[in-house]
Amino acid sequence: MNSYGKLFRVSVYGESHGKEVGVLIDGCPAGLSLDERDFEKDLLRRKSGAKGTTPRLESDRPVIKSGVFKGKTTGAPLLIAFENTNVRSKDYDTLKDTPRPGHADFTAAQKYGGFNDYRGGGHFSGRLTLGLVAAGVIAKKIIEPITVKATLKEVGGDSDIDAAIDKAIKQKDSIGGIVECSVQKVPVGLGEPFFDSVESLISHMMFSIPAVKGIEFGSGFNAARMTGSEHNDLIVDANGKTGTNHAGGINGGITNGNPLVFRVAIKPTSSISLPQHTMNMKTGKRSDLVIEGRHDTCIALRVPVAVECSTAVVLADLLLQEQKISRIRISD
Amino acid sequence: MNSYGKLFRVSVYGESHGKEVGVLIDGCPAGLSLDERDFEKDLLRRKSGAKGTTPRLESDRPVIKSGVFKGKTTGAPLLIAFENTNVRSKDYDTLKDTPRPGHADFTAAQKYGGFNDYRGGGHFSGRLTLGLVAAGVIAKKIIEPITVKATLKEVGGDSDIDAAIDKAIKQKDSIGGIVECSVQKVPVGLGEPFFDSVESLISHMMFSIPAVKGIEFGSGFNAARMTGSEHNDLIVDANGKTGTNHAGGINGGITNGNPLVFRVAIKPTSSISLPQHTMNMKTGKRSDLVIEGRHDTCIALRVPVAVECSTAVVLADLLLQEQKISRIRISD
Amino acid sequence: MNSYGKLFRVSVYGESHGKEVGVLIDGCPAGLSLDERDFEKDLLRRKSGAKGTTPRLESDRPVIKSGVFKGKTTGAPLLIAFENTNVRSKDYDTLKDTPRPGHADFTAAQKYGGFNDYRGGGHFSGRLTLGLVAAGVIAKKIIEPITVKATLKEVGGDSDIDAAIDKAIKQKDSIGGIVECSVQKVPVGLGEPFFDSVESLISHMMFSIPAVKGIEFGSGFNAARMTGSEHNDLIVDANGKTGTNHAGGINGGITNGNPLVFRVAIKPTSSISLPQHTMNMKTGKRSDLVIEGRHDTCIALRVPVAVECSTAVVLADLLLQEQKISRIRISD
Amino acid sequence: MNSYGKLFRVSVYGESHGKEVGVLIDGCPAGLSLDERDFEKDLLRRKSGAKGTTPRLESDRPVIKSGVFKGKTTGAPLLIAFENTNVRSKDYDTLKDTPRPGHADFTAAQKYGGFNDYRGGGHFSGRLTLGLVAAGVIAKKIIEPITVKATLKEVGGDSDIDAAIDKAIKQKDSIGGIVECSVQKVPVGLGEPFFDSVESLISHMMFSIPAVKGIEFGSGFNAARMTGSEHNDLIVDANGKTGTNHAGGINGGITNGNPLVFRVAIKPTSSISLPQHTMNMKTGKRSDLVIEGRHDTCIALRVPVAVECSTAVVLADLLLQEQKISRIRISD
Repeated sequence: MNSYGKLFRVSVYGESHGKEVGVLIDGCPAGLSLDERDFEKDLLRRKSGAKGTTPRLESDRPVIKSGVFKGKTTGAPLLIAFENTNVRSKDYDTLKDTPRPGHADFTAAQKYGGFNDYRGGGHFSGRLTLGLVAAGVIAKKIIEPITVKATLKEVGGDSDIDAAIDKAIKQKDSIGGIVECSVQKVPVGLGEPFFDSVESLISHMMFSIPAVKGIEFGSGFNAARMTGSEHNDLIVDANGKTGTNHAGGINGGITNGNPLVFRVAIKPTSSISLPQHTMNMKTGKRSDLVIEGRHDTCIALRVPVAVECSTAVVLADLLLQEQKISRIRISD
Repeated sequence: MNSYGKLFRVSVYGESHGKEVGVLIDGCPAGLSLDERDFEKDLLRRKSGAKGTTPRLESDRPVIKSGVFKGKTTGAPLLIAFENTNVRSKDYDTLKDTPRPGHADFTAAQKYGGFNDYRGGGHFSGRLTLGLVAAGVIAKKIIEPITVKATLKEVGGDSDIDAAIDKAIKQKDSIGGIVECSVQKVPVGLGEPFFDSVESLISHMMFSIPAVKGIEFGSGFNAARMTGSEHNDLIVDANGKTGTNHAGGINGGITNGNPLVFRVAIKPTSSISLPQHTMNMKTGKRSDLVIEGRHDTCIALRVPVAVECSTAVVLADLLLQEQKISRIRISD
Repeated sequence: MNSYGKLFRVSVYGESHGKEVGVLIDGCPAGLSLDERDFEKDLLRRKSGAKGTTPRLESDRPVIKSGVFKGKTTGAPLLIAFENTNVRSKDYDTLKDTPRPGHADFTAAQKYGGFNDYRGGGHFSGRLTLGLVAAGVIAKKIIEPITVKATLKEVGGDSDIDAAIDKAIKQKDSIGGIVECSVQKVPVGLGEPFFDSVESLISHMMFSIPAVKGIEFGSGFNAARMTGSEHNDLIVDANGKTGTNHAGGINGGITNGNPLVFRVAIKPTSSISLPQHTMNMKTGKRSDLVIEGRHDTCIALRVPVAVECSTAVVLADLLLQEQKISRIRISD
Repeated sequence: MNSYGKLFRVSVYGESHGKEVGVLIDGCPAGLSLDERDFEKDLLRRKSGAKGTTPRLESDRPVIKSGVFKGKTTGAPLLIAFENTNVRSKDYDTLKDTPRPGHADFTAAQKYGGFNDYRGGGHFSGRLTLGLVAAGVIAKKIIEPITVKATLKEVGGDSDIDAAIDKAIKQKDSIGGIVECSVQKVPVGLGEPFFDSVESLISHMMFSIPAVKGIEFGSGFNAARMTGSEHNDLIVDANGKTGTNHAGGINGGITNGNPLVFRVAIKPTSSISLPQHTMNMKTGKRSDLVIEGRHDTCIALRVPVAVECSTAVVLADLLLQEQKISRIRISD
């Protein structure tokens, strides 16, 4: 299902070239200040238009359809909608027969018997992360004073991000990247010992973000090459502070009060300007393919805000379960 | 909660030094042949005793308490229990005040207000994976003819696994490793476009296995360093077969019919024979720590079967949701 | 949470005097014919305006915002919205302090710390059943050839419904009623032995409909006064057909292939024109109360369609779980 | 699935003539005093042996297999098992072909393709309520100081219960009954406005108890015959206390702080000593049927404790969600 969360539940809907995309948020505490301007900053970080991102420009204006009254959340479900305005009336019908490599064209057609809306990726479009970001903006308010910060560490294997983008644009190719996220002021005790470990929940969410293909917590894949004496984080005070943080703030699936730290791997955008080939599913013959239209050279540029927002959603849900935050905010 | 799954639901219970550990399995199709010997092979692969694993030896004999009648599953819940027999009557009370680095001692005590059973890790013990393996043995039968195969690729950064273990034993230290899992004959169309992508579900499960700290699908973290023209898997036949498999068998969160491929990073065992120090939580002073007792030099040696079984559980649940397998098995 | 369903999931949102009310539907099979006219018939049955119902007239025009492409469901989530157009700009602020007897004014204010939207009942308004009816219209298509039929059997204890309404209008009072629902062509085997019995699921749904205060299956409360030899339904053919249907089509929580039959009790509308008194929550003193505005003399008149639609939603979810209907409709 | 609850989750397992029946409880707060004697009182109320109940006598001794350490709950899952000891080695194979009227014999065989354990009702046996009662004993501790009290109001339509039982025994028939449950000291604000109304959740649970065929809250079915001016409960103090309680303590799906009151209808036991007939499913011919063995004349006698315990489970889950009770009990 297209939902996440037990007490703070987020459900996304919509298609790239349909009427709108958006998000339904259930279980939001009552009494939180909220108006449409609160979303601006994070939506801007997600927005395209900068170098290396698609020139498709949407106004991306959120409309709160329910759940807010007199400037405060009411405790009832919030629906936040984004109208699709800049939809090109291109003929996407060729896509039906010649699925683009690396896209969901083939899997969506198979899963839904060919009834999927294939225009611009339909429901599989990165545009669906608008709802995720909107939910995250609210979640960030809920989890205060916890702060979540995600940054792009490298693109195409290069930490000089500007140069790497220039090179990829020149080559008409796309590149991936690595985003690191760190969460401060996390209370001890979030998460469950087994199936709902904090790593389980965060990774579940991260792989919802299109193009994410890997995640590691703390030392992650490097830990596989370390010894126990190197990797064990020694506890240095009675609050559980550790000298190192190879565990990324999690022991036994439970937060230990140190910063949560994890990294996600973003694959290169599948849509590239270089000519490719694919199969024509109708004829069963190889078919040349040139993907026209607008696309991102490096989608990783726009991912950090989605990572932050997704993380905030997971934490909001966990904090409510663990009763670390209240269902009614009076002071806000 | 300690459960996973929507239609095929697995819940684990028990403590390392309690009466028993086990698993409750709900939603298992009726009519599957099952008796206690079916678990032997995979339980043996999980078992300790070999070089590099703990000398604690349990008989690990599964008892099917419900859900099987005349040698077939009935459709009712299965409870599979493993009695704890080889429990050392050691005084674990010192652990209460001096949490072991890298363990859940501190987080468990905090989360449960000190009421947790701390003997041998209690509910956080690796012994809980017995239930996971038992569930996986059943799941493997359900998902036939799909096959899941996990293997240890390297330990301590070394693909000569035997040598690496010897070295670590000599150093009284522990080492981690990397396990690769590959699934053959996966149908197209499993998974959901957003929150329940196949990557989301598999990673959710993998991070339930103690000591897993990273996961990557297909090219994973390497994808972040590739270009789109390198990474895109070109479709080469009308069934969606691709020439390469950088995507690890998943596009847009949905299986594409090619093998599922992913790798998980296992951290080194936290329990080591080398002296360490920690905080005494009562006195607030640094305390020397020597972990006695039996522990694994390289827990990664015992992880492949848990990875396989966890994967089978995810697939069984997805296949039931997607109606690719029946709720009643007549032919079995 | 404001959601129901495991594989066919329905979530409602909105407030009586907010921008819109609506429903998000996840898990709808792909390939179902659907356009906005399909909702007309059932929405008309729910509509007010007839004798005994509130004169508030809304256009109640559903807009499908997502999930339909080329006249067919796509398999992606459907959002169906109803704009609120006929909203009176009355001052509802007095309600804050003087909760109306029998309404959710008091409970909502308490639950949400006074942040609830209290205008016209806010999120507790009967208007929220618009989303339920919309979901049910789709569910009815999914469950074909199963048919669901609910009818009003009595109002105010009287089977002459017209006369009873006239009397109540004259007395400026309101009256309740009893709705009976019968489902034909139900397959054997839906429901679970224990917590998810068919009675559990249907009753769960029925009590979501505002004003429902009781439910009974088959002989229901009369069964409590029968003997076993009277109540037992004798099986009369090899398909499990029974001579009588005291069980209402359910044995051991599972459908037995005979018609599902149940009745729900609808309480009288809380809003009446007669003067009442309540407490002023601010002053702690008794306060006279006259409820102005538009209300239903007998809300039970509008309930049958909600009962039908709710039942169809439960059945759609169960049929998908039990694999009795396909996730892709080709023939439609 | 055989589970109930979001944060306090209860799952039952087992068969009447298998090895054991029991319950897995997840999400129980840590620090609650618990030992096996705590279950005695309520298990005794459920027990058979008295006039009007089956002479099958089981020791019904609960064994806590996990989740308790040093006499306190640990926060980890509790498994509570009841060994089946008094199992008659009767030949139940005839039941396979000639399903007993009013039982789940036919529906279970159909649902599970004939693989169900049909001995003594198998997983459909009333014996499964042992787990429910065990869970309820714990839930009652959790919800303190809230108290739940269920009593049998009438059997066979007669409030002289003793006489009614005598008469039924004499007639070799069975009779049903009505159980009323009342909950004191319920806080305001439990439940959700729509799908998870308190009525929805309690009714969901009540229909899990075998033989329950109806439920009504407050005035229930009588409300359908009342006017609004009669039914509305006037608020008489600033805490929301009402003069009458026709609503049964619930407005808009949310508890209003007055006692929760509801009644459930129990059908007569299906197993009777009188001769009946049924269909032979193999031959397709009418077959005479005499049910031998031990059965209850009036199962309603044993239902009140199950109603109480089920209600406590619902409330424990709601109180945790609404943060009215803590996840760690220090004072206990």
